[in-house]
Amino acid sequence: MSEPVSTKVPRGLYGVAVTDTSIAKSESNGTLVYRGYEISDLFENSTFEETAFLILNGKLPNSRELQEFSLQLKKRSTLPKNVYEVVRELDRNAHPMDVLRTAVSSLGAVEIGLSPKEQQLSLISKMPVLVANCYRISSGKEPVQPDSNLNTAANLLYMLNGKPPTDLESWALERELILYMEHDLNASSFTVRVIASTLADIYAACTGGVAALKGPLHGGANEAAIEMLLKMGNPMQGEAMVLNMLAKGEKVMGFGHRIYKEFDPRAQLSKKLLKRLEEGKGRSASLYELADTVEKKMWEMKKLPANLDFYAAPIFHVLGIPIKVYTPLFAASRVVGWVSHYNEQLSDNKIFRPDAIYVGPNKLKYLPMNER
Amino acid sequence: MSEPVSTKVPRGLYGVAVTDTSIAKSESNGTLVYRGYEISDLFENSTFEETAFLILNGKLPNSRELQEFSLQLKKRSTLPKNVYEVVRELDRNAHPMDVLRTAVSSLGAVEIGLSPKEQQLSLISKMPVLVANCYRISSGKEPVQPDSNLNTAANLLYMLNGKPPTDLESWALERELILYMEHDLNASSFTVRVIASTLADIYAACTGGVAALKGPLHGGANEAAIEMLLKMGNPMQGEAMVLNMLAKGEKVMGFGHRIYKEFDPRAQLSKKLLKRLEEGKGRSASLYELADTVEKKMWEMKKLPANLDFYAAPIFHVLGIPIKVYTPLFAASRVVGWVSHYNEQLSDNKIFRPDAIYVGPNKLKYLPMNER
Repeated sequence: MSEPVSTKVPRGLYGVAVTDTSIAKSESNGTLVYRGYEISDLFENSTFEETAFLILNGKLPNSRELQEFSLQLKKRSTLPKNVYEVVRELDRNAHPMDVLRTAVSSLGAVEIGLSPKEQQLSLISKMPVLVANCYRISSGKEPVQPDSNLNTAANLLYMLNGKPPTDLESWALERELILYMEHDLNASSFTVRVIASTLADIYAACTGGVAALKGPLHGGANEAAIEMLLKMGNPMQGEAMVLNMLAKGEKVMGFGHRIYKEFDPRAQLSKKLLKRLEEGKGRSASLYELADTVEKKMWEMKKLPANLDFYAAPIFHVLGIPIKVYTPLFAASRVVGWVSHYNEQLSDNKIFRPDAIYVGPNKLKYLPMNER
Repeated sequence: MSEPVSTKVPRGLYGVAVTDTSIAKSESNGTLVYRGYEISDLFENSTFEETAFLILNGKLPNSRELQEFSLQLKKRSTLPKNVYEVVRELDRNAHPMDVLRTAVSSLGAVEIGLSPKEQQLSLISKMPVLVANCYRISSGKEPVQPDSNLNTAANLLYMLNGKPPTDLESWALERELILYMEHDLNASSFTVRVIASTLADIYAACTGGVAALKGPLHGGANEAAIEMLLKMGNPMQGEAMVLNMLAKGEKVMGFGHRIYKEFDPRAQLSKKLLKRLEEGKGRSASLYELADTVEKKMWEMKKLPANLDFYAAPIFHVLGIPIKVYTPLFAASRVVGWVSHYNEQLSDNKIFRPDAIYVGPNKLKYLPMNER
């Protein structure tokens, strides 16, 4: 029997459509839709909970559905004591994504007997609480329970900073969470689908999602972006540093995107938000001006557009969020996309089992140790 | 700017070669090579440590290299106390793979400051110790430290059963560990490569590997196989049950394989081993005869060959290994393949970021709540 011939495809599956999806669509011309809605429309009008419902269920909720969904999330937001104990055993200097990954994994070994649907709601509800409290424990602080009067975004700021945010602050964070919620087959969502395809459960799949999101080529870029901006300090120095980095062949963080070649719509929405937030907090728009200068210079020199991370990072900074929480924060929102991809994968599943072209040696013969 | 056209490929990436590899090659005609060596040659002649060295380094070790490699593994086999504490926090009824996944993840948040090479050796050394002691703790037993006078296979049996195995027993388990060590781009190794491609570390990647291996379509099959065989009891009832299951359209566990359409070479090697092991332990070859009958019936009726899981499972049973350890045991050996795939991915990396064909709605407009 002759071997079936494999189709060789580009590395990284670049340009290779591995599935149909009706969750989201990003296009190189700078458009992004969630379930048919333009990202700008949702950014302007929707809430975290509404958008999560939309991504999960394919339709915007009516008021009864939204109330029920929000209630389902709120009533599941208390973390089991054992998960806190697990986090307390981890090293204080561990990478925050290693801590979060372990906490998510442990949840799957502590919450026993839930239905698949309950598991999903639990994970979406608890992920922001995990993000905030893994940070708190790693920083030597006591965990904070979410306040049932606050929505997801406000609760995140409350738990992270230990005090309730202003309306402007929680509104701003909510906008960023909406932008981070879903982005078709990025590496973490693809990881979730591969794990889902074995019929492993949602905790297994999302643990894999967090694992992939740790990688500096994926989730780690927003931390690198703010560190660069803070080092630059002001527009003039920013411009000089960009030129200097480019001359040395260094990577300028927060630029370029696999899909968006002209502009990242999420970056442009975040840019306006950054200005509004800085001004709303009564400070000059200094990070906005710096970022704008760097963005223009990068386009002039390299024709690379700023991506979401480049503008989300200064927003998180103005909101007082500790830098080490930036990547975990991504997971607090993206978990909604992961759960949707998990369900879509299982709705028409075939296990991922690609081929590889063998290019190694052949017909070698085991030699006894003394003949090697 | 028009959208670049995506190439649509078969679901599950069936028949799609996503990378070159020089680690292993499996072919539909029933051949499997590791780094150029036939699996039967390694099965007959090699040890766990030698085969692991081969898969990791692309060559069989000479005696100095093997001694050094074995020493490196032995000196890293002690688990940090905190990892045990993490496992103690998990539910006694949690799925063993959820426990193992959490333990592997926690190792990455406890072992700080190792080089990438040290991390890999640590993980390969500790995985069997994790497998055995996660089981022990979940069963209410105290953990057992590995005995530095025993090799990996003997230590596994010693830690699992609490007493040193006979030479035949540890030799038999070692054969199975060799067969399970690597199998090109199965779902867990592919998961490892996707996570590796983000530049996340080996703990992140192997946590994802364990997560994928949990799935009943991947690692879970050997448990199902032994449960079926034990229920059958004897050849005559086995034959009747097969016919009955087929008549009802039920899946008979341990048959069929994505690659091997005629026979799985690992199953055939295991089959001979099962006979030898049963006879060597002075019992009649009753599981062998039962399995042989079921295998022949399945080939006669469905032209489906027995796969590795079908014959590994009764071997584990004869070795006294608790059924809930069968899938974790797979990970204790496959971790070697995962680490090799991780390194091969990074040697010529491009992040996995496939496309999807959007088939959802378009141009929807956000409506205020009261108009929905």
